[in-house]
Formats: sequence, structure tokens, C-alpha cells
Amino acid sequence: MTTGDTMTTDSQAGIRDHLWMHMANHKHLYEGGRTPVITHGEGAYIFDDEGRRILDGLAGLFTVQVGHGREEIAQAAYEQTKKLAFMPLWSYAHEPAIALAERLAAYAPGDLNRVFFTSGGGDSVESALKLAKNFFQLQGKAGKHKVISRATAYHGTPHGALSVTSLPGLRNQFAPLVPGAHKVPNTNFYRADERFAGDEKAFGRWAADRIAETIEFEGADSVAAVFLEPVQNSGGCFPPPPGYFERVREICDEYDVLLVSDETICAFGRVGSMFACDDFDYVPDIITCAKGLTSGYAPLGAMIASDRLFEPFGRGGETFAHGYTFGGHPVACQVAMANLDIFETEQLNARVHEYAGTFRSTLERLHDLPIVGDVRGAGYFYGIELVKDKDTKETFTDEESERVLKGFVSQALWEGGLYCRADDRGDPVIQLSPPLTCGPDEFDEMERVLRSVLTTAWDRI
Amino acid sequence: MTTGDTMTTDSQAGIRDHLWMHMANHKHLYEGGRTPVITHGEGAYIFDDEGRRILDGLAGLFTVQVGHGREEIAQAAYEQTKKLAFMPLWSYAHEPAIALAERLAAYAPGDLNRVFFTSGGGDSVESALKLAKNFFQLQGKAGKHKVISRATAYHGTPHGALSVTSLPGLRNQFAPLVPGAHKVPNTNFYRADERFAGDEKAFGRWAADRIAETIEFEGADSVAAVFLEPVQNSGGCFPPPPGYFERVREICDEYDVLLVSDETICAFGRVGSMFACDDFDYVPDIITCAKGLTSGYAPLGAMIASDRLFEPFGRGGETFAHGYTFGGHPVACQVAMANLDIFETEQLNARVHEYAGTFRSTLERLHDLPIVGDVRGAGYFYGIELVKDKDTKETFTDEESERVLKGFVSQALWEGGLYCRADDRGDPVIQLSPPLTCGPDEFDEMERVLRSVLTTAWDRI
Repeated sequence: MTTGDTMTTDSQAGIRDHLWMHMANHKHLYEGGRTPVITHGEGAYIFDDEGRRILDGLAGLFTVQVGHGREEIAQAAYEQTKKLAFMPLWSYAHEPAIALAERLAAYAPGDLNRVFFTSGGGDSVESALKLAKNFFQLQGKAGKHKVISRATAYHGTPHGALSVTSLPGLRNQFAPLVPGAHKVPNTNFYRADERFAGDEKAFGRWAADRIAETIEFEGADSVAAVFLEPVQNSGGCFPPPPGYFERVREICDEYDVLLVSDETICAFGRVGSMFACDDFDYVPDIITCAKGLTSGYAPLGAMIASDRLFEPFGRGGETFAHGYTFGGHPVACQVAMANLDIFETEQLNARVHEYAGTFRSTLERLHDLPIVGDVRGAGYFYGIELVKDKDTKETFTDEESERVLKGFVSQALWEGGLYCRADDRGDPVIQLSPPLTCGPDEFDEMERVLRSVLTTAWDRI
Repeated sequence: MTTGDTMTTDSQAGIRDHLWMHMANHKHLYEGGRTPVITHGEGAYIFDDEGRRILDGLAGLFTVQVGHGREEIAQAAYEQTKKLAFMPLWSYAHEPAIALAERLAAYAPGDLNRVFFTSGGGDSVESALKLAKNFFQLQGKAGKHKVISRATAYHGTPHGALSVTSLPGLRNQFAPLVPGAHKVPNTNFYRADERFAGDEKAFGRWAADRIAETIEFEGADSVAAVFLEPVQNSGGCFPPPPGYFERVREICDEYDVLLVSDETICAFGRVGSMFACDDFDYVPDIITCAKGLTSGYAPLGAMIASDRLFEPFGRGGETFAHGYTFGGHPVACQVAMANLDIFETEQLNARVHEYAGTFRSTLERLHDLPIVGDVRGAGYFYGIELVKDKDTKETFTDEESERVLKGFVSQALWEGGLYCRADDRGDPVIQLSPPLTCGPDEFDEMERVLRSVLTTAWDRI
């Protein structure tokens, strides 16, 4: 700051002059526009500085599984902060990290017993990518370094994770990235080729086989890992077709390619189980997770790897020369423990199983609106794809998307009392991912606000 | 975990079977060795599960500036966790982030007014690298994407930051990285060519000019940024020679290359000022920081950029398509505010200025030991280089380094009651970076333990 400036106390001026928001356009701040300022949260609701009470239909950002304002987590944070707020895991350890590592290994399937903590999902993906390359190099297969992921998938923003991410609009302005990141089709059945009409299984088989094809094109001795979300978020909630992951696992085994289940969004009850690979019956080689691990109450992520992948770095005596100062932060780990305690005492995963059908059928009521093309998802995780023509599935022009979706829908939902996400990184969708404490009342509330806003949006096209 | 396993309550078994430590070798765990488990912290001391009270000579990891166990920070964490524990900065804002952005902009020099929050230092470097590339692409100079950093420098472990990092042992097993990251000499005056004997200024000029040379070799239209720490940590605390940064700034201006001051370690009083560029009188285009920002009480980092770099993303209407779920976490920001309050009420930076000379002269007493080759640093940040021959500056063989430094010094210091770092990523050094609350008593204590352990180490070579 140049001498003579004074510190402002006006929030909007503070944002405009100093706070660089994420994935955000700031132009409106110079044209009289406002940025919503969230003041506090209680259960499934957040409150803004203009007095609004808003249903948090996105759990912050697919994160706040247990809802806002939890006294028991605040207490855990307080006590651990006083006791030991910081110590890195760089050859030293502390109880919260040990206990959480044991707990995550117990939740994880198969022999996924090795927990490497990070500061968030993107860095968990970074860690998995580094482990895959390092592991194969130690096996004398340094050529196995390429990775495969799916169209429109988001896996994070640091350079390694961004290379795996498959959204050109998030990548190309940051070239060059890490070489060797290849892309295959996702499992968007709504927009699948018509030869698959009605046959989800055949579509899934075809989509999985595109992974094998890419491995063949590149040569198995050059491919290290496949990164997949159990239910792909970006693009708008694509669940796996029946048989998809079974076939992917088969392909990975055949070509000695690691299967990384990126569960940054899907883990911790979002789909109904602690790890969503269990919801879809496959055992990956690595799980990456974050968000719901602490319900966002503290920054934390983890990469959970199989005993086989750890072996060279265990008894093998090699050092995995990777780490984060804040990975496995004592307070964050203790907060995660308190969060997972709530999962168990309130049986949140059972709750998701109980109410997931109601959530789906409540959202499916919106099918009577002409703008609603598809409602898809699983558990407490849904995408509603908006279309201009229900029959032809015609989507919006860039201009319409900009004017109606970005220019109207997001703000109208907010003003109507619903926080969720209108995303046009793929085809335009509304993303819903409420706290797992929600039930039929909140589902109805979401449906009411969506119905009203989407009806008006249709009139504005 | 496979069915039938039971959860262990033994810390060492928990570590061995589940906790993947960072930058760590695990082999000793299978050979009867232990990992120190830290139970709590108070002021400048940490305590382990075997009853030891240990002086934290490394501030955790160059992090815990205000010391451990601060009630006022625990309170701030508690209150913010209850009020609003999570909300992302993705087009939304909250008061803790706004207030902290204003405060950091007020501390920062020049027109570095734009604060982009991250989850840690490595991700701040990632963000700076992405901003540099995006900025030049928007100016129609997409070719300007290469970066320059210095030999042995550490800038973080995600793929982008790792490309900037200049430690082959941390990089090569993870190839390929981001292309176009070039390296220049650092300012290790102790091992400078003899033609610079006694002339630090000439050495600094030579070292700075290597940056200009590299830009010329590559072509200025291909180079985006230079990443430098004010005092380079890795290799063992290299302060800038007089005139060094003045010349670097001149070079950056001449070739339109951004100067990134990576202050992950040096900011927040480590050298004496809030931002260490002020200690050495230069104004960078970007500051990256983390660690001391919260004193490690919560995971948080920041990239602070000039108004010029923000302009295209402000009034210019472009979106910087980058972000972290946990970047600018409300609790972490509020914890940072409480931490910075302590800086102000206890005048920690003034304290560093007052006692830095005493710290230096206390450590310089170790010069009478035959193993101590050099004592260098600034503020509360020192490296002690160990040598086999004081006169010739001969360093240790790999075997000696492994056996004496890794095999003996680290553990002996710990058992002697001093936590610091024996680092052999460059030439072997002991790194010291105590909480800023330390004074002459703690300096004497460090010197005592070091003297005893280094004397024994010498006998063992």
C-alpha cells in the first residue's frame, strides 16, 4: 500500500481494492455491483450481511457435510489449538495425525492402509500423481509417467492437478503444464451417442474401453495412472453406468496402470459411504480426498494408498521426497476426528441412504419445467441440466448462457434464499450438494426456489 | 483395511502401519526405531511422549513466530469456527478474509495491494506462476512463460512450484515437470569463487548478472518471472550480498520480467520486517507467503500482487481461473488476524531487530569448533555449515553425511533438548529459526546443546 492510503472499513470497498476472489470475475465491483458477504452459518443455513437467511444447497463447496456452527467441532479446534497448534509431519508425528490415519485406513477398502496428509483436494491429486511416477521409476519403469482422465473433469488447480483437469478454459492460459496428460470420454449418458439409447451398460462399456484404447495408443509402458471421480462433478454429476468401474479396474490390472479414485467431493457420505468407491464396488490403488474429511471446518486433505505402493518407501528404505508444511496440521486432524465422530453418532451415512430417494424424487418434480433437461446424480449430490429444447436437448448459446445463467439465475437463487451453483464449464447445470443433515423439508425448499427461478429464467431467454 | 484388522492404540504401531510422514524415511520403524511424537507446546518449548521438554529452535518449520500454546489464538479459532467455519472465496466473501486482505495490503510495499489467499507456501508459488503466465498471455505475449530460480532453492512441492524448486533430489523422480524452469547461481558467498575473495558486492553483482544472462540466452520474450527468497533457506541461509536485489530489480525492469519474492519463510518478522523485501530494500511484483502469517496455527498462504498485475482481472473483466477450496479459510484468516495482533501488541519485529545481533554473536561463539565452517543468516534465521576441514572448507562424503549427520546429529540434538534441522540437501547445515519470542536465554541454550552435540559429532567422523 502506498503511504497516505488509509484502511477502509467498508466491506465492499475492501473486496474491490484488496481481496482477490477465486474463480471470480471482479468487473461488477467497478460498476456498482456487490459481492455477497457471508456473516455466519447455522445448520443448513448461511446468513449474509444484508440480512438474508439462505439454504446452503452446496454445503459451502461440496464440503460442509455436518452443517454449520457445530459447537463440538469448535471445542475440538480450541483445545487442540491450545495444546499443540502446529508441528509438521516431517519425520515427526503427533497424536491427531496418527489417530486420523488409523481411522481413515479402517474406513478405506482393501489394503489402502497408508495415509499421506495434504492441505486440500488439489494437493492430494498432486501427491497421487507424484507417487505414481515415483513408484514406477523405482520399479525401473521410469517411462510410465503419463496419466489419463475424463473430459470436463476437474481435479484441482496446482500445475500437476491442473494437467489432469480436463477443462480447457481452466488450463490453456497457464500453458505449458505437465506433459503427458491424456483425456477420454466421461460418462455423460444424457448426451451419449444415440446408438446407446437406453442401454447404459453398453455405453459404460464403451466409455471404459476408451481408457484401454488410450493406453494402447500411448503404450502401456508409458502410462502410470487413471484419475476418475466416482461420480464426476464438473459437467454436472455423471454417475458411473453399471459395470463401468468393474471394466476400468480390469483394464488397469491388465496394463499395470494405477486407478486413482478422486473422492475430493464424493467421499464422506456425499454418495452414502465413507468412500464412494464402496458405493460403486471397486477398489482403487489410491483414494484422494479432502473437503468432507473436516466438513471444511479446517483445511485438510489426504492421499490414501495401498500397502503395495507404500512398500518401497517403507521396508524398501526409499524416501518419498514430498510434503506440505500444513499437511496433517494437528488442529485440522483433530477437527476431522470431531467431524467423523458426528458422522458416527448421528449416523449420517445411513441418513443419506434413507433420504437419497426422496431427494431424487423431489428434484425430479422439476421435470415439468420446459428448461429442465436432465436430473442426475446419486446420494446427496445432484446436477440439473438446463436446455433450450427438451426434445432435441438443444443447449444455450454462449450469449444466452452469459445473460440468463450467469447474469440472472445465480443471483436470483441467492435472492430467493438458495445457495447452489450455476455452472457452465460444461453444458449448463445447477449443482446441488446440501449438508447431509438435510431432509425432506430442505429438499422441498430447494425445489420451491428452483421452480420459481427457473420458471422466470425460461421467460427471459 | 482388510476385515479382521483391529485399530491399534500404540502410537509407534500407528505410525508404522498407517501414517505416511513427509520427506521422511520410514525404514527405521521396521528395525526397532521410534518416531518422536510431539504431545504439546508452550512458548518456545515442545514436549514429546517420552517426557522430553525440547527447545523449538526451528519454530515448527520456520513457522511458529509467536510461540506455542497461545490462548488468544485458540479463542479466535473457537469463535470463528462457531460463527462461520467454512465458506469459499469463489465469488463470495467473508469478513475475516476481507479484513486480512486489507491488513496484508497495508503491510506490503509499493502498490502490492491485491491479496489472493491459498492454503500454504507451495500453493502461493503455484499461484504466482499461474498469474505470471496468464498476465503475459493477456498482453499478447503468450511466449513469456519460462521462469528462473536459484541453485539449491526450495519453493514447494506441487508440480509447478517443484519445477521452480532447484533441488535435483526432490525433482528428478517426478519427471516430467513443467517445462521452461531455468536455474542460476545462488548467493552462497562462503563457497564463492576465490576471485570474489572478500568482495561480497562484486560477488552479488556477478550472481545477479547470471539472471540477465539466462534471460538473454532464452530470449526476454520467453521469460515470465524470477523467483527468489530474500534470504535463501535451502543450502543453509544465504543472505543477499549488498546491491544484489537492486541489480535484480533493474534486470527485471529492463526485460519486463516479474520479480517474485518468495517469502514463505522470511516474511512476518523472521528477518525483522513484516515483509523481508523491506529488510533488503526492494519492491517485487509479487510476494508469496504462508507459515508465519498464522504462526502455523492454521493452514494459510497468500500471493500478494501489484495493482498492475490485477488490472486485467479487475476493471479489465478477465477471470483469473484459479482457486483453492481452502484458500482464505475463515478460521485461518481469523487466526492470522489474532496472530498479527500479537505481533503488534508484543512488538515482535522490534524485538527481532533488538536481539538479532545477540543471536548472531551467540551462534558465532561456535566458530571455535573444528566442525563449524560458517555461521550465516539474518534476523532470527541462521544456518551453520559443517565442514571436515575449516581451512580448505572440505565437506563430508555422502557416507559421513549419512552416518554422522543423519545418523547421529539430528537425534542427539533432540535428545539434548533442541529441535532444529540438520539438512544435507545442499552442503550440510544446521538450520535455526526459533520463535520470535526467544531472547538471550534461549540463544545460550541453543549454543550449549549445539556445542555439545557438534563436539561429539566431530569425534565420530
